[in-house]
Amino acid sequence: MRKDVLVIAALTASLFAASLLPAQSIEISSAAERTSARGPETAYTGLAIAEFLFRAGEASDLTAGEISFEPGARTAWHNHPAGQYLIVTSGVGWVQARGGPKRLVRAGDVVWTPPGVFHWHGATATQGMRHLAVWRFVDGSGGELGEHVSDEEYLAEVEAADANE
Amino acid sequence: MRKDVLVIAALTASLFAASLLPAQSIEISSAAERTSARGPETAYTGLAIAEFLFRAGEASDLTAGEISFEPGARTAWHNHPAGQYLIVTSGVGWVQARGGPKRLVRAGDVVWTPPGVFHWHGATATQGMRHLAVWRFVDGSGGELGEHVSDEEYLAEVEAADANE
Repeated sequence: MRKDVLVIAALTASLFAASLLPAQSIEISSAAERTSARGPETAYTGLAIAEFLFRAGEASDLTAGEISFEPGARTAWHNHPAGQYLIVTSGVGWVQARGGPKRLVRAGDVVWTPPGVFHWHGATATQGMRHLAVWRFVDGSGGELGEHVSDEEYLAEVEAADANE
Repeated sequence: MRKDVLVIAALTASLFAASLLPAQSIEISSAAERTSARGPETAYTGLAIAEFLFRAGEASDLTAGEISFEPGARTAWHNHPAGQYLIVTSGVGWVQARGGPKRLVRAGDVVWTPPGVFHWHGATATQGMRHLAVWRFVDGSGGELGEHVSDEEYLAEVEAADANE
């Protein structure tokens, strides 16, 4: 038998053996094992508490964080290389892309911001908001952080309430 | 002025113009706009109701679905080209990778299944389970669908209850 055939046979056998061991491949983390932490002042204004459900680099290039914003709290301006989805799970908040209107979001809304677009998201001035954020890292980067959202930007008039209904 | 300099100037101007129009780039869908549907019999056993929060191809290659499984309901065996995260949002369920033990999951658990690994997930026989599933399409494919999970596989003994605590 030729040597390369043996190599292929060995590789096939090893792949087959690996396929018998997927039990280790499912990984489960419980809520009790994970930790929440206050969002850093460089990236947030006000009180935001973030819990990462999974992080890029652990198993894939996806990150998901559940973030609770107290009234008045918001992210700084920032972007993401592959865009970002927000799933609003409770409360009422505001989102805005650079140069666009501030928009109202509420529980059940899903927000998409495309790659590279600077934006911010947070609670309204009077109500808290909680969302799951899902985004993908590219070349090890989750995005770029810009300046804080000023009170003037934050308190700007919201786009007509019916605009996204 | 050389022609290539003009081209660069025109490109720069057009990029700058594009950067003035990010308002259209944030997209918001409300829960009321989306629809739920029963999971097809080819892919599920029993009653599972799925709501897609976003779908690969709409704006990115990511898909997220919130799926409610009635007691006894489960997916068929299947895999995903870039793996899959499940975020269990309520109830109690079972998950299993091919060749591995059946494991118990409950609200708050996050389950990772690596790329290509055949697995199934669903409610327990006596309690419902709801989870958000997040996975990435590769080359237009969300994964491969295998055979249904037999009652014998489904009702197999669960791994020791403390194993993932």
